[in-house]
Amino acid sequence: MRASATPAEVAHVVTLIEEAGAGVHVDAGGEFTVIGAIGDRAIVAGLPLEAVAGVEKVVPLRKEYKRVSREFRSRDTIVTVGGSPIGGGNFAMLAGPCSIESYEQTLASAQAVKAAGGVVLRGGAYKPRTSPYAFQGLGLEGLRILRAVGDEVGLPVTTELMDARDLEDVVEHVDMIWIGARNMQNFNLLSEVGRAPRPVMLKRGMSATVEELLMAAEYVAKEGNDDIILCERGIRTFERSTRFTLDVGAIPVLKAETHLPIIVDPSHAAGKRSLVMPLAMAAVAAGADGLIVETHPTPEHALSDAAQQIPSAEFGAFVADIERLLAVTGRTPSR
Amino acid sequence: MRASATPAEVAHVVTLIEEAGAGVHVDAGGEFTVIGAIGDRAIVAGLPLEAVAGVEKVVPLRKEYKRVSREFRSRDTIVTVGGSPIGGGNFAMLAGPCSIESYEQTLASAQAVKAAGGVVLRGGAYKPRTSPYAFQGLGLEGLRILRAVGDEVGLPVTTELMDARDLEDVVEHVDMIWIGARNMQNFNLLSEVGRAPRPVMLKRGMSATVEELLMAAEYVAKEGNDDIILCERGIRTFERSTRFTLDVGAIPVLKAETHLPIIVDPSHAAGKRSLVMPLAMAAVAAGADGLIVETHPTPEHALSDAAQQIPSAEFGAFVADIERLLAVTGRTPSR
Amino acid sequence: MRASATPAEVAHVVTLIEEAGAGVHVDAGGEFTVIGAIGDRAIVAGLPLEAVAGVEKVVPLRKEYKRVSREFRSRDTIVTVGGSPIGGGNFAMLAGPCSIESYEQTLASAQAVKAAGGVVLRGGAYKPRTSPYAFQGLGLEGLRILRAVGDEVGLPVTTELMDARDLEDVVEHVDMIWIGARNMQNFNLLSEVGRAPRPVMLKRGMSATVEELLMAAEYVAKEGNDDIILCERGIRTFERSTRFTLDVGAIPVLKAETHLPIIVDPSHAAGKRSLVMPLAMAAVAAGADGLIVETHPTPEHALSDAAQQIPSAEFGAFVADIERLLAVTGRTPSR
Amino acid sequence: MRASATPAEVAHVVTLIEEAGAGVHVDAGGEFTVIGAIGDRAIVAGLPLEAVAGVEKVVPLRKEYKRVSREFRSRDTIVTVGGSPIGGGNFAMLAGPCSIESYEQTLASAQAVKAAGGVVLRGGAYKPRTSPYAFQGLGLEGLRILRAVGDEVGLPVTTELMDARDLEDVVEHVDMIWIGARNMQNFNLLSEVGRAPRPVMLKRGMSATVEELLMAAEYVAKEGNDDIILCERGIRTFERSTRFTLDVGAIPVLKAETHLPIIVDPSHAAGKRSLVMPLAMAAVAAGADGLIVETHPTPEHALSDAAQQIPSAEFGAFVADIERLLAVTGRTPSR
Repeated sequence: MRASATPAEVAHVVTLIEEAGAGVHVDAGGEFTVIGAIGDRAIVAGLPLEAVAGVEKVVPLRKEYKRVSREFRSRDTIVTVGGSPIGGGNFAMLAGPCSIESYEQTLASAQAVKAAGGVVLRGGAYKPRTSPYAFQGLGLEGLRILRAVGDEVGLPVTTELMDARDLEDVVEHVDMIWIGARNMQNFNLLSEVGRAPRPVMLKRGMSATVEELLMAAEYVAKEGNDDIILCERGIRTFERSTRFTLDVGAIPVLKAETHLPIIVDPSHAAGKRSLVMPLAMAAVAAGADGLIVETHPTPEHALSDAAQQIPSAEFGAFVADIERLLAVTGRTPSR
Repeated sequence: MRASATPAEVAHVVTLIEEAGAGVHVDAGGEFTVIGAIGDRAIVAGLPLEAVAGVEKVVPLRKEYKRVSREFRSRDTIVTVGGSPIGGGNFAMLAGPCSIESYEQTLASAQAVKAAGGVVLRGGAYKPRTSPYAFQGLGLEGLRILRAVGDEVGLPVTTELMDARDLEDVVEHVDMIWIGARNMQNFNLLSEVGRAPRPVMLKRGMSATVEELLMAAEYVAKEGNDDIILCERGIRTFERSTRFTLDVGAIPVLKAETHLPIIVDPSHAAGKRSLVMPLAMAAVAAGADGLIVETHPTPEHALSDAAQQIPSAEFGAFVADIERLLAVTGRTPSR
Repeated sequence: MRASATPAEVAHVVTLIEEAGAGVHVDAGGEFTVIGAIGDRAIVAGLPLEAVAGVEKVVPLRKEYKRVSREFRSRDTIVTVGGSPIGGGNFAMLAGPCSIESYEQTLASAQAVKAAGGVVLRGGAYKPRTSPYAFQGLGLEGLRILRAVGDEVGLPVTTELMDARDLEDVVEHVDMIWIGARNMQNFNLLSEVGRAPRPVMLKRGMSATVEELLMAAEYVAKEGNDDIILCERGIRTFERSTRFTLDVGAIPVLKAETHLPIIVDPSHAAGKRSLVMPLAMAAVAAGADGLIVETHPTPEHALSDAAQQIPSAEFGAFVADIERLLAVTGRTPSR
Repeated sequence: MRASATPAEVAHVVTLIEEAGAGVHVDAGGEFTVIGAIGDRAIVAGLPLEAVAGVEKVVPLRKEYKRVSREFRSRDTIVTVGGSPIGGGNFAMLAGPCSIESYEQTLASAQAVKAAGGVVLRGGAYKPRTSPYAFQGLGLEGLRILRAVGDEVGLPVTTELMDARDLEDVVEHVDMIWIGARNMQNFNLLSEVGRAPRPVMLKRGMSATVEELLMAAEYVAKEGNDDIILCERGIRTFERSTRFTLDVGAIPVLKAETHLPIIVDPSHAAGKRSLVMPLAMAAVAAGADGLIVETHPTPEHALSDAAQQIPSAEFGAFVADIERLLAVTGRTPSR
């Protein structure tokens, strides 16, 4: 409460909290009165206390996420995608082209991923593009190519879901659904994939706090789907020498706050091929449970994100470097 | 090109641009070579030049938005909502509760809005909430209440559309669709409302650049719907003494870049009732074409955003202050 | 404390607080224990509690600034510069060239400022420039010109102090010292001007929080100099369509938190001449106690910040527009 | 130029560039005219082109830094501090307490640093503190302790210089001067240390771009001192779960742009002891030439930054982990 709050104002706040069914503790010993509300965070957080006369500020002490928190489950969750375990010491390499452009291009990329030891093939069929005039993806046709290529080379596949109306198609064709950064707070979509029979990879929004990422995951978990992989992919800051700023500190923070696996997308954070490897190495060293990397047979001819895709011919060496680093960190590549 | 680029590298870039059908100008006079690509921005922007050997950086000189640009239409677009003109010198007050909670609450808020001279009633039926445990809105029942109240008091109404599957219901019940900040880059949703027979208010994402906001509007316009109102509502920065940082400079920047009306939501930027008025005044002084303000009969009992809603009883005085300011700026309140 | 904290860990924290001479309140009623430390903020803030086993987080409830807070003095401080009152309802226009380049240029700018009703002449003699190859200011010669021109036209003058070794020269020649954004946390310099016999204008650092700005002012006030004017000049964000993002919300936040006058520099936030007026209008409408604006007789030939300076010939019209706005806000131009 | 620019406006811009002594190339082939100015960046950058009628925007293609750029010197600079090489494949561990509090505390910290293989002892004598009521450092007495301890254990020493008036004392007592983040744009101080006979470690400001950091280094180099080590220590973003956001991407960007060594301070970015190691590992994996880490014999009793200091007893294990990682990256610990 403000130092100038009247006893009546203090009493009014106490009444509001009690009426909501929460416990109250009042500490009037100092220069100003501190009121503690003890009870379900969802109830207490719902109280409009900041609008009440005499209130200086409201400081939440309890976290709003439950099912995804370490308190809820202390052991690491291991998410299995097409037989490959991710998390809990199992390090996974997910890779593939930014966009599915054709069967041939996807196959070439997939073969490089498989040969290098990757465990999941990524590829965009529905593409979120800043410009309406840019290539928007092959849609359902892309899903079919992705599935066929995955079966051909023996890799589970994942693609981005942008629209709840495409959920059935996506579930039919892929082994894991991914929710992109721009949809991290598309709450309806989160609830839908929370009811889908597939693991979900949830990418952090470019201006989402770690807490908001966990609340987004809670939307998925609340519907019963606990097979969630979180993905840090860079946040938006004033610095423009990289496309986004990889928040490498979020990795250990998330490892402490949640039992879910955390992977990192170095490609989008980098925005430029020469920066992908250093960011990937940093992510692994900071404790990431996996990477998701863009690789294309001929980046110069890619229809999207050309600048940041690693040529398929170099992907084996890329993974070998990562695995050398992994060896000194006590984690094992998932196979 | 890098200073170290070889003639072969320069020639390769020139070839790539020419193959794409764009013109090329090469300036090799200085320490390093500058290559200009002249042609359709969508084509040139699609070229993966940053991935090509020898390229130092790619600097776009032409804007990617077309239909929403001032170059496309030099005169201000006036969007008419339920008979009230917005933009082109017509200043509009849009107001109403954060969420539609009941008929009575919505009616009380609407009557205050009408009495004060507001021209559009806002109210959320589908609510994007950070927490899955928070009030999520009344949905279709909320739309019905909003329509009934609008008709009762004689105000056109607007509500947020979060999901393309609700588009028909929303079109049936409201006079203007609004797209929230978290969906500013939900490109499918943008294209859908681009085909809907209603004006669209598009809120800026909390980490979207001005250019990205215009590209999002371009998605709507590309489908044929030019009745678009842009809304600045605060961006995410390091500063936390306000809920968001109102980017007041975006108002004159947008006025120069686009012919679309720009309104401002001071409530979400402020996050606190006492800050709503100063931010509203600032927005008006900087040239906004309107405001969208949250007002509630009894904020203390609001189910969402309680701290930032203006009590309905004070709303008339709020509008009167705004109109006094308006009088010295050469704009007229829309009626 | 963490939910997993042991009683011994709780007891250890209590001991640490008590040993520091602060009171303690322990609330162990809920899922986890909350420990309140009651006492001097400087003492409590100095405790290394976040390093102690079992501690989840430390939440400061009391502000660290004292002398500059509203609690310390509830009435607005009015700072007088050369006879002109600033703050407490007195609105001041401070203006002049970015840099002092010559007697003639400074005089021309000053005459326009005086004619328009400005009350303080600004001009940079020591210039903080990003590049060591850019014009660095005329130094002492600039101070002499500034003083001579101020005396000639009858305006008090202010200049930026960058280096404590120049303090004597600056005190000798100007009526108010200004501390630039890049030196807002140059704590030695703050303490020095806290002992100087001149009012101080303190500009907010480009990434300083409102609280850090107030703590910087506290450094000045602690040494005995309470004649402090705070200046908001835009913060650094991801948005680059303006040079900085004017944090217009900081104006009402500061008015609530401190008794010191708040002025705004729209020129540096804008970075472009056409944006200066809208930002200036916004600042005035949001409650600023004054403006500091760059104006130059021939901006095209300015040696620094050419793009954002208002031509002296247009400055009278600029001020007239501001004063029309001021008239509806209940403040009076300082003379 | 704007599409609407007149031939006279184009001609005027050409004249301005030519008068400044730079070459001009005009490309009028497209929808709008592009004017290239070819010549010394310092001259061209000084032209007030953005203030000139008809100009749409000014895009700098050449970098403003010279002496610190890779173009100026392609081989890595190796800075030697007290006989230990830093950079060019030599990885250096700099460590010590946040503040020098006493001879005993500094000695205990230094012995742990020496034993673990650290090559430079750090310790703050002049402390930049947000609050004027916090411990401000021991000053000259601190310098004496630092020198004595360094001699005792056989480690070169470094301390932060905040004020040019302390330069002589600092030069007399330490082997390397460090400039803190808050003084990265204290240009006078930069020029002073550019003339000092000591290597300089320059920390990146919390909201400084990579380019601004390099321009700050250019201030030092311009005066003749090329023994500069750059230090990334976290930037300010919206995310608050770490004290700052470590910009790990800046490491490879800087390695490409400059020949100077880059070290990383994981302690200040983390703000919390448990996060220091993951950030340190990330920095090493991303290619840093060294680390500067805070370590204290008893962090619980530290007078500053208690939460983020590593206990001296654990420092050996910390360094051993770092060196295991280093072994797979092809760099050698400096001794």
